[in-house]
Amino acid sequence: MKVQFFLDILKPHHPGLDLLARTLMDINGVNKVSIKVDELDQKTASLHINIEGINLSLDEITEVLATMNCALHSVDEVVFEAED
Amino acid sequence: MKVQFFLDILKPHHPGLDLLARTLMDINGVNKVSIKVDELDQKTASLHINIEGINLSLDEITEVLATMNCALHSVDEVVFEAED
Amino acid sequence: MKVQFFLDILKPHHPGLDLLARTLMDINGVNKVSIKVDELDQKTASLHINIEGINLSLDEITEVLATMNCALHSVDEVVFEAED
Amino acid sequence: MKVQFFLDILKPHHPGLDLLARTLMDINGVNKVSIKVDELDQKTASLHINIEGINLSLDEITEVLATMNCALHSVDEVVFEAED
Amino acid sequence: MKVQFFLDILKPHHPGLDLLARTLMDINGVNKVSIKVDELDQKTASLHINIEGINLSLDEITEVLATMNCALHSVDEVVFEAED
Amino acid sequence: MKVQFFLDILKPHHPGLDLLARTLMDINGVNKVSIKVDELDQKTASLHINIEGINLSLDEITEVLATMNCALHSVDEVVFEAED
Amino acid sequence: MKVQFFLDILKPHHPGLDLLARTLMDINGVNKVSIKVDELDQKTASLHINIEGINLSLDEITEVLATMNCALHSVDEVVFEAED
Repeated sequence: MKVQFFLDILKPHHPGLDLLARTLMDINGVNKVSIKVDELDQKTASLHINIEGINLSLDEITEVLATMNCALHSVDEVVFEAED
Repeated sequence: MKVQFFLDILKPHHPGLDLLARTLMDINGVNKVSIKVDELDQKTASLHINIEGINLSLDEITEVLATMNCALHSVDEVVFEAED
Repeated sequence: MKVQFFLDILKPHHPGLDLLARTLMDINGVNKVSIKVDELDQKTASLHINIEGINLSLDEITEVLATMNCALHSVDEVVFEAED
Repeated sequence: MKVQFFLDILKPHHPGLDLLARTLMDINGVNKVSIKVDELDQKTASLHINIEGINLSLDEITEVLATMNCALHSVDEVVFEAED
Repeated sequence: MKVQFFLDILKPHHPGLDLLARTLMDINGVNKVSIKVDELDQKTASLHINIEGINLSLDEITEVLATMNCALHSVDEVVFEAED
Repeated sequence: MKVQFFLDILKPHHPGLDLLARTLMDINGVNKVSIKVDELDQKTASLHINIEGINLSLDEITEVLATMNCALHSVDEVVFEAED
Repeated sequence: MKVQFFLDILKPHHPGLDLLARTLMDINGVNKVSIKVDELDQKTASLHINIEGINLSLDEITEVLATMNCALHSVDEVVFEAED
């Protein structure tokens, strides 16, 4: 099943977007990650993250985000699609 | 017959979007589900749900939503199309 | 001849969009029906209906709408196209 | 030569859009007619008509419109294109 | 070389758009002409004309416009492209 | 390397857009030139020029513009892309 | 892995956009660079840079920018995608 999650994330200034994206790409089944900065505060950044892949689990993604000190603020949209 | 329903749903905070989408994907004939959060209140979330598939029945979808404690607030659009 | 009608319809709360769309799909030559809710009043709903098909007759569509207690309020657009 | 005319037309309430479109489709060379209602007055309707076809003559279209009691108000755009 | 000119033209009420477009199509190399009415005054019409073709000369187009009593008001855009 | 330059140019009323475009097309490697008039003043015209081609040099383009009495006002955007 | 970085950069007036783009294209794996001027101040220019390529490293890009006297102001978006 093709899955897409659109997430709002709160991230401390470190790690950078670069490392965060690479770490999410390492999750089994993920084939695309795009991260956009929504707002920069003194100690944190609000991010829109779009993760696409096959049979992704939101729990696993949330755990990986936690290891990067990122908090899942909200899930804005989910898209599930049967594979052809 | 290809069918698309655009629904407005009222959902308690649990279950999450993730589980709701997976459950709707299990309905016979469904091949795409996308769920977008419209408004978050203290105890509920208003959702726009788009369900696509073959020979879908709105009654069956409403029943499945009820088992997830989700109420069908309104049907915004329906699209029916003959298969090629 | 490929034909498309864009209609404004006044519908009582019953039948639902689901049944209305299925009934219009049963008209000879129709291959796509999309129905969008424009406004909901206490007893009626204003609908935008787009019907596509081959050699459709507006009279026949109006008759079928009448059997569903739906009144044709106006014809907003018609598109006729020669088949390839 | 492929030709497209975008016309502004004044039409009495009868004939309907349906019959007007069918009549224009009968003109030699026409392969697409789309008619959109711009404004409805008590006795007339202002229409945007787009007619496409091969080697169309504006004079012939104007004559056919006259037989339907429709007056050509203005020509908004013309597109001529060599056939491949 | 593929060439496109976007011109602003001042035209008396006669000739009509129809005849003007046909006359421009007769210029050697022209393969598409589209004419849009920008403003209608008492005695003249302001037109946006888009002419596409191969190795077109603006001088020749201006001369043909003059024979139709049309004045070139301004050249808004030119596009030149090497042929494949 | 495929190159695109988006330039702001100041041009006296002569030469015309037509000749300016032809002259830029003669530069080695250029395969598309589009010129749009931004503002017309008494003695000059401000132009947006988009030049596309293979291995273009901004210096060479600026020199050619100078021979046409055109001044490079600013470089708004550059796009470089590896050839497939 | 296909990578895209959208960067905000502060650049002194020299080097020009042309040279900056060529220098970034020389980085291993880069296959597209587009640079757009956002704001021009007396001594600096704010730029939006979009760099695409295979297995790009933000650190390497930042170093190359530093050799051109350009400071990375912020990373606006990163996109990572598995190669087919």
